[in-house]
Amino acid sequence: MSRNTFGHVFRFTTWGESHGPALGAVVDGCPPGLPLGEADIQPFLDARRPGQSRFTTQRQEPDAVRILSGVFEGRTTGTPISLMIENVDQRSKDYSEVARAYRPGHADYAYDAKYGFRDYRGGGRSSARETAARVAAGAVARLVIPEVAILGYVSAIGGDAIDPANFDADEIARNPFFCPDPVAAARWEALVDTARKAGSSLGAVVECVATGVPAGWGAPLYAKLDAELAHAMMGINAVKGVEIGDGFAAAANTGEGNADPMRPGNFAPVFTANHAGGIAGGISTGQPVVVRVAFKPTSSILTAMPTITRDGQATDLLTKGRHDPCVGIRGVPVVEAMMATVLADQKLLHRAQCG
Amino acid sequence: MSRNTFGHVFRFTTWGESHGPALGAVVDGCPPGLPLGEADIQPFLDARRPGQSRFTTQRQEPDAVRILSGVFEGRTTGTPISLMIENVDQRSKDYSEVARAYRPGHADYAYDAKYGFRDYRGGGRSSARETAARVAAGAVARLVIPEVAILGYVSAIGGDAIDPANFDADEIARNPFFCPDPVAAARWEALVDTARKAGSSLGAVVECVATGVPAGWGAPLYAKLDAELAHAMMGINAVKGVEIGDGFAAAANTGEGNADPMRPGNFAPVFTANHAGGIAGGISTGQPVVVRVAFKPTSSILTAMPTITRDGQATDLLTKGRHDPCVGIRGVPVVEAMMATVLADQKLLHRAQCG
Amino acid sequence: MSRNTFGHVFRFTTWGESHGPALGAVVDGCPPGLPLGEADIQPFLDARRPGQSRFTTQRQEPDAVRILSGVFEGRTTGTPISLMIENVDQRSKDYSEVARAYRPGHADYAYDAKYGFRDYRGGGRSSARETAARVAAGAVARLVIPEVAILGYVSAIGGDAIDPANFDADEIARNPFFCPDPVAAARWEALVDTARKAGSSLGAVVECVATGVPAGWGAPLYAKLDAELAHAMMGINAVKGVEIGDGFAAAANTGEGNADPMRPGNFAPVFTANHAGGIAGGISTGQPVVVRVAFKPTSSILTAMPTITRDGQATDLLTKGRHDPCVGIRGVPVVEAMMATVLADQKLLHRAQCG
Amino acid sequence: MSRNTFGHVFRFTTWGESHGPALGAVVDGCPPGLPLGEADIQPFLDARRPGQSRFTTQRQEPDAVRILSGVFEGRTTGTPISLMIENVDQRSKDYSEVARAYRPGHADYAYDAKYGFRDYRGGGRSSARETAARVAAGAVARLVIPEVAILGYVSAIGGDAIDPANFDADEIARNPFFCPDPVAAARWEALVDTARKAGSSLGAVVECVATGVPAGWGAPLYAKLDAELAHAMMGINAVKGVEIGDGFAAAANTGEGNADPMRPGNFAPVFTANHAGGIAGGISTGQPVVVRVAFKPTSSILTAMPTITRDGQATDLLTKGRHDPCVGIRGVPVVEAMMATVLADQKLLHRAQCG
Repeated sequence: MSRNTFGHVFRFTTWGESHGPALGAVVDGCPPGLPLGEADIQPFLDARRPGQSRFTTQRQEPDAVRILSGVFEGRTTGTPISLMIENVDQRSKDYSEVARAYRPGHADYAYDAKYGFRDYRGGGRSSARETAARVAAGAVARLVIPEVAILGYVSAIGGDAIDPANFDADEIARNPFFCPDPVAAARWEALVDTARKAGSSLGAVVECVATGVPAGWGAPLYAKLDAELAHAMMGINAVKGVEIGDGFAAAANTGEGNADPMRPGNFAPVFTANHAGGIAGGISTGQPVVVRVAFKPTSSILTAMPTITRDGQATDLLTKGRHDPCVGIRGVPVVEAMMATVLADQKLLHRAQCG
Repeated sequence: MSRNTFGHVFRFTTWGESHGPALGAVVDGCPPGLPLGEADIQPFLDARRPGQSRFTTQRQEPDAVRILSGVFEGRTTGTPISLMIENVDQRSKDYSEVARAYRPGHADYAYDAKYGFRDYRGGGRSSARETAARVAAGAVARLVIPEVAILGYVSAIGGDAIDPANFDADEIARNPFFCPDPVAAARWEALVDTARKAGSSLGAVVECVATGVPAGWGAPLYAKLDAELAHAMMGINAVKGVEIGDGFAAAANTGEGNADPMRPGNFAPVFTANHAGGIAGGISTGQPVVVRVAFKPTSSILTAMPTITRDGQATDLLTKGRHDPCVGIRGVPVVEAMMATVLADQKLLHRAQCG
Repeated sequence: MSRNTFGHVFRFTTWGESHGPALGAVVDGCPPGLPLGEADIQPFLDARRPGQSRFTTQRQEPDAVRILSGVFEGRTTGTPISLMIENVDQRSKDYSEVARAYRPGHADYAYDAKYGFRDYRGGGRSSARETAARVAAGAVARLVIPEVAILGYVSAIGGDAIDPANFDADEIARNPFFCPDPVAAARWEALVDTARKAGSSLGAVVECVATGVPAGWGAPLYAKLDAELAHAMMGINAVKGVEIGDGFAAAANTGEGNADPMRPGNFAPVFTANHAGGIAGGISTGQPVVVRVAFKPTSSILTAMPTITRDGQATDLLTKGRHDPCVGIRGVPVVEAMMATVLADQKLLHRAQCG
Repeated sequence: MSRNTFGHVFRFTTWGESHGPALGAVVDGCPPGLPLGEADIQPFLDARRPGQSRFTTQRQEPDAVRILSGVFEGRTTGTPISLMIENVDQRSKDYSEVARAYRPGHADYAYDAKYGFRDYRGGGRSSARETAARVAAGAVARLVIPEVAILGYVSAIGGDAIDPANFDADEIARNPFFCPDPVAAARWEALVDTARKAGSSLGAVVECVATGVPAGWGAPLYAKLDAELAHAMMGINAVKGVEIGDGFAAAANTGEGNADPMRPGNFAPVFTANHAGGIAGGISTGQPVVVRVAFKPTSSILTAMPTITRDGQATDLLTKGRHDPCVGIRGVPVVEAMMATVLADQKLLHRAQCG
């Protein structure tokens, strides 16, 4: 119900705007005794950090995290962990144009309609900068689920998909696109460059796979593991679609084609397919949990689009400034973070009810 | 956090199993003074009711709803509305096979892994019968949002999609598929019949459009209107994917192609496109809210599939009994109900914060 | 936030009015595998049941509970447990007077002010009959905390208190007042009889002690065990005060006088006093948890009191009908039930965070 | 469920420890457009600030608040308001004794029992310094309820109560005790001085009255206005009892004596008594809302008390350092703040449901 809190037992609350002094997250309900320092969080923020290649926004933010509470002698105490990241590169640009008219595709008009006015500096609260707070909270969540490995990557940009035959997890860190297919990565370099130079932008699909999730996490019916994941992912800026396992492809399949047969295994059943994406009846099955997330193209483009001013006059507006030509790319660490927070929460919830 | 409660201010809790004596919903937080009787709820239950054509399960359930509390002299009192539907047609069949082995694609194994045992009669709590309770709650929610019209329909079965050029809302009630395209409906008759006779099943896509939603409902960031809808829809049995507006198609688009330009209007802006599905920054824009939901094919099929028994032995299992050959069809009233409950809740939340 | 749901991980939702067809509770989050039948719940309802002596209301209600869901083969399944109690003795009396004017001390005026109208039959939702649903939920909660013994009793009626020197737990069930002091019980017989015959009513204090609560349940700061108990108890009809341990007496004490010194023990520390009522910093200490609850005198009395009608005219009103001369007496099973639900919830929450 | 969040629609989350770098609150759900600056919050923090007289702890903290988000051009934006207060006077004392043994009456042992270890510096999260964050959040809440005036004061210290005949609201700010009775204030000076010099401490009772609350706020049954207030107050450090209206005195009264008769009024009924403390059936009646809160004596005293060490050995411990001789005194701004947050939340909840 709280608009800025996520989770049930393991939960976090974020605050902050694009051009305010700082942003942050308060993580509540974290188990005590977990070793935690800023160095455990920073690498994930660094992965999301802008300005590292020409394919992301050129805003320079160190995104250095400070732990202000909840850790004592290097371990979590079980009390709220306050994480703060200072904004450094809020450029003192002229915002009069954005203040005056609504950027098409942006939340500008919706914010005004809801609240009566808005912080127009860099998008205010609706800026993707907020996702830094999620990534920080996700880094804490990972400590709660050491049995789980989370792997996120971009599987398509602007409709150009990776070839599963080329999949190599080691490639993900080797290119600026979190792309596991080196051939696709090479194509995307040209693709994104072209869009960037044209003042355009591109959508992307991010996939995220969590292995090591034991059978039994999640719960029927309104806190299903898949429902929680859908909520988590659809709450990320620019996301317009979420799939679990085969997703929309399952809707075009038959019962036989979509079944995940089971065979006896050593300690747990062996599934011979994973159409379900590791979740049945809202509960994990022990198979990898697979989520696919659609990011729309960045709304901020250098092409003028028809819009209206705050006082209802027709105008054309192009969005100058520093923007990601493909916001989905930097969505990878964010999707991973949300996966981690959902799983940490569900692990604790399962322990609560089932011991 | 509650696993069986949905919503924040307008909320409902459901209970009941496929083969228990009854199932129901308790609706809490409903505004007082709304005219409500059983006749306001029954038509929506009738639309979802099984056994009305050969394309749905042949279980005969009148699904007659009783209001046990929260209404006085024909009006809601503001206190909890208890809705109960008795199960009538729980056939006293032999469940020993389902009790012994896990039906592939079903929640059987996951329930056992979580809870240690399960109510195997007709799927117990994981049965789609639970959705009757959602539909009942949704009928109450509709009273809270008289300004909104909700239209759901099947847009594809087994990969065979409607032709938007044939779209006719009046057709939806004229065929057993909630299909707005009479040409497609005719094709689907053969398609579903073939699957049904082959003991197979088919997936489907349900679209739902809410018109009349004013700009300003929803809220950043973790209770975004789209995140709430994703949560609502992904919590429905058999759903594996959710899209808002263009969804995954947006991920293949460019910023210019995906923009929703604005022009001055009489009382509100006029948008010349609706790629966003009526939601920007998690807040409604005044455009129609568009959701697309992927239902997997029914897991219960008459084709034997490899699986294991409770004690880990290999076996083959086919699921006898009465089943929907395409569970997505009857998903239409359920998707509409969840749309209604999300919007009712968000309307009240918006009123709480913004007056 | 839900107005009719209590608890976090172990939670229940109640519904129903005094003169509706039934009332009930939906218990969610209960651990699976606990043996549960109606016979486990009924004794607690019987203890609260009216009409068992001349010191309680003469309404005749069997308060027979039915389990409608969540139990399979005699064990809880982990899914919602729906409990229903039918109302049997709703007398078809004439309510025109109560409908027309506000009973002083009752919720009549407040309900009208909030909702615009009210179910005036027997107090509708504000009736103490709702507490039957709490008692039923509490019976389920007890199964979650077998390590805890809960003992409630009346410690004062109309200002006449028990003598701690006479305390005998076995006496509680031997008199119609849940009184552990046989001497006081004898006095109360005359006291309550006099009030009853005079058409008056009396307040009472209920104490409740939970032994066996291990150290570590509860949590700082806004879900402190004592805050949760205060919330639980103050939500019971007619309650106007709650104390933990010494309560208001602690406010008149010194630091030395109020300290609970500790000595080494075998498995846990030994406390040589329990001023704190078993809770420090919002967390249980392993000592008995002690709560004291003030019930106001029943507002329904046979003495005419000045009031106003719905249309604002002065009138005098006395409340005919069947009423408890001291509603606090039957509050004992309700206080015990709320203690049980809070402790069950906190046990699961503690397990969630701390394993 | 969140342990460090309070409220439903208007809610806040606090973080921070006594000796960490800072503490703070994140206020979520605040209506947009309210004029808010640090100067609106600081006076309330100043009222609670330590070190202003010899009757409070001598720790010197400016308690200067910074607004880090949620305000733009001097008005609330409707997004989270992050408030931060830096700790300045964390004395680098030797904590080895507190680390080694449990201070009787403190949360030390309970924290260790729950979390396995604790931040022992100044009590860590269990320190009353946390209440600064509540006071800051309360200052924001006050802006949401301009129709309400909140008046808190100390009504008794160490069992020495004010004389209602001497009540003068203007006196409250004129003495270091928030005492509305100048005669009692004079007595308390000697009383508290004696305790302070003896290394002892005293309990206190704080009363808080909210006038201007319209009829209709609050709701049956588990979010009753009185239950919410009880929860709010019992969650404050050192609180052991809460009364609404007559509280425990009502338990010693009769139905006639406890009735609040009504007479016709101009716009609303006139009540000729207020035993109920402005709340009936969990809903405000339009009368002043009256809460009474019992603070235990400060546990930190200079008298050695028997206790045990972390490894279970008997020892005696006296708590050196800077402490309030009567922690209830500085409880007044905290009680007022919690009253404000509850009322703001209930106002918005009422608006949500009832328009």
